[in-house]
Order: sequence, then structure tokens, then C-alpha cells
Amino acid sequence: MPDASDNLHVVLVATRNPLNLGAAARAMSNFGFAHLRVVNAYEVAFREARSAVGASEILANAKEYASVADAVADCTLVVGTTAVRHRELHHPLRRLEYGARLIRRQLVEGRVALLFGSEKVGLANADLSHCHWLMRIPTREKHISMNLGQAVAVCLYELVRDAKAAQRPEKIKPATASEAERITAVLQDVLRASGYVQPDAAAATEEKLRRLVRRLNLAADDADVLLGMLRQIEWKMRQ
Amino acid sequence: MPDASDNLHVVLVATRNPLNLGAAARAMSNFGFAHLRVVNAYEVAFREARSAVGASEILANAKEYASVADAVADCTLVVGTTAVRHRELHHPLRRLEYGARLIRRQLVEGRVALLFGSEKVGLANADLSHCHWLMRIPTREKHISMNLGQAVAVCLYELVRDAKAAQRPEKIKPATASEAERITAVLQDVLRASGYVQPDAAAATEEKLRRLVRRLNLAADDADVLLGMLRQIEWKMRQ
Repeated sequence: MPDASDNLHVVLVATRNPLNLGAAARAMSNFGFAHLRVVNAYEVAFREARSAVGASEILANAKEYASVADAVADCTLVVGTTAVRHRELHHPLRRLEYGARLIRRQLVEGRVALLFGSEKVGLANADLSHCHWLMRIPTREKHISMNLGQAVAVCLYELVRDAKAAQRPEKIKPATASEAERITAVLQDVLRASGYVQPDAAAATEEKLRRLVRRLNLAADDADVLLGMLRQIEWKMRQ
Repeated sequence: MPDASDNLHVVLVATRNPLNLGAAARAMSNFGFAHLRVVNAYEVAFREARSAVGASEILANAKEYASVADAVADCTLVVGTTAVRHRELHHPLRRLEYGARLIRRQLVEGRVALLFGSEKVGLANADLSHCHWLMRIPTREKHISMNLGQAVAVCLYELVRDAKAAQRPEKIKPATASEAERITAVLQDVLRASGYVQPDAAAATEEKLRRLVRRLNLAADDADVLLGMLRQIEWKMRQ
């Protein structure tokens, strides 16, 4: 999302801990989201976070709002995050994997607000009523509630993750059959010289070695190195 | 990953900050991974993290090791995490999306160690040499390095995320055409009674209303509520 990411506005509501404000800003910077909005942050938390050494540009440029309504006024989609699973929710509740897809689609066209509530109680019902729908991170039933900074990081990661990257083929060049065979041959010689190979079992050992070398799935570079080692050993044994 | 998750061992190497140890343990608990191993943690950090209020069972049960070699000895796959992108790496470097797939596959069969280095310098070359390959979170070029607790959370989330959940269809029951039509009819009556509809434009207005109501993509439940509101308004206007 090279440009669309500019349409995302992370909205932190009633955050108490300056470390969490800083962590949220850091995750935003890691994943390329620049716009932070802060609603009713505890005065001290916001001031401390801003003045912290290494506070990002994001935190310095964060905008303060007095209400959720003001903070999301210019957005065309407002999504609240929640750890609640069973409580009667008056909103569609979507898993992050699916919700992020919908957000990505919307970001192409307009501003999206992604809301995170306070550490203790999350978003209040009044805050939630400004949301089009809610999103939850697929945490374990017995430990649903995430640390705020970690929740922000996970949500933003899901927004930037590249499904195609999961399919990406390896870039490592594998050794060819002839490279594997050269290794097999020299290894056979070395083992013969060392007395490891019984003369009457030479043929069986050769096949065993060949299979073993194939199972190593050697990269071309590693095959080179290994062949060099074996040749050196072979040379030394012939002295 | 109901059972396979039991095969993952998160290995924190030379962690300095007790808050990060705690955050890593919390993310593990959130995503259902129980086994934490700690190598060369700063004495104080480990003691403080363990004694922190609300420290999870995971932290209490964490095992201490004197070296990476010891910590990964019983694992069949050892994966190091790194923020390095350009430095000459002597390992295959995989993006999280792809690496997590390989890890999930391996977890079915055997123990996997997932290593995270210290906050300042990450994993040392000596630590990396114990790894089969390395993994990186797809952060922005200009701000690669993540907070430790957040990095752990993002990696574990990728391990539990459900690709199928991204495709999951909505469970919201949409309103039927006849429900939409009932709303249109009552709305038309109300608007006529209010004087909004000009008698000579009634047919055009009816079509306009019908299209507008369809564009709302009402859920069945919401159609019910809306119809109730409109009928009440209609009743009041007839008084």
C-alpha cells in the first residue's frame, strides 16, 4: 500500500500509559503509517510520550481531539478494535484477517479511522457507536486481551502483509545432479582411503552415499564448499 | 494449530528490559504458545519480569539456558529473527509471511525454536550460526527495527492467523426485497403525509425512494427496526 496507507488514521482513545503511546507510534513507523490521532489521552501520558528520547515524528505530529466524533469526522470508514467476544455487541464483529481486507479496499478511496481504546477498559459503548463495525485479533479464548502497543502492531502488520510473499519461491540456487555426483565420487574416494568402505561392499556403499548426498538438498554454493573440503581431505590422505 | 503450537519454543537471547520479557510472554499467552526459553537474560530483567504483578504462567515456567546451543539442542528447526536486510547474511532470509508457513509445517512433526535477540543489537553472529535460516518482519526500509515485544506478537500472530478467515463470508442476514419494499412503501406514505412528495412527482419520487432504500444494503434486523420507526411516525402523523 504505497499511497493508500496515507489514508489510514490510527485513533488512540483515552490511552493511559506513555509507553503504549510510544509503542503505537513506533509500530506505525515500522509499517509505514504516518497519521496518529489522540482522543482524551491522559495529559501526562501524552506529554511524556512526546518528550521521550527517540519519540518519532509520528508522535510529534499526532493530533489531539476532544471526542471520538471529532477525531473521525472526515473518515468514510470507522473501525473499532475490541477484545470482547461474547458480550452482546451491536456491531458486526470481524476477525482481523477479514477486517483488514475490507479496510485495505476502503483505503484506496477514502480515509479510514482505526480506533483503539484504553488499556483497562477498551473502547466505551459511546465510542463504539461511531464505528461502522468492529474488529478483533484472533487471540486465545482464555487470554483475549492484548497489550495496546502489541495490538496496534499486529493490526498494522496485517494491513501491510503481502499474501503473495507467502508463496514466494526460494531464491537459493540448488546444486545440480552433476555437482552432487562429484561430491559423491570424492566422498567415496576419501572413505575408501580411510578404510570406512569394505572392498566387498563398495557398490552398495556407493549407492548409499549417492542417496545420502541427494537427501542433503545442497545449495550450489554449499556444494562448491563441500567439494573443496573433501578434495583437501583426499589430498592430505594421499600424502 | 491446536497441538502443533506446543512444539514451538520462543527463545529470547540477552534480553535487557523486563517489560519486554513480560510483553513477549503476554503475546505468547494471547496466541496460545506456552514454552519460553531465556538465554543470558540480564539477571535483573529476568527477576523483575518474573516478579511483576500479573506475570503469566509462561514467564514463571520459562527455562533458563547458558547458551543458544543448549537452548535449541532438542529442536529440529531453528529460526532466527533479524531486522537486518542489506548486510551480508550467511543464511537464507525469509519474509515472515513465507517463513511462518515453513514453521507451521515443521511444527506438526517436531520442535521449532524461534529466536529473538537483544533490544540493542539483535542476535549476534555466533547465535545466528545455530539457525537453519532467518526471518524478517516486512517493516519499512527507513524504520526496520521493531520493539522486541511487538516483534514477538507479530511473528506469533502470523503463525496463528487463518488464511481462510480472510475469505469468510458475512454472517449478517441481509434484508429481503419484500422487506425493503415494505420500508419503501411506508416511507413514501410518511413523506406524502409530510408534504415532502409533490403530488405530480409521486411516481418519480417512488422510484427514487426505492433505489435509495436498496442502496442502504439493510440487514434484516435493521430493516425490522427501521420499519417499526417509520410506522410509528406514520401513526403519529395521522393523529
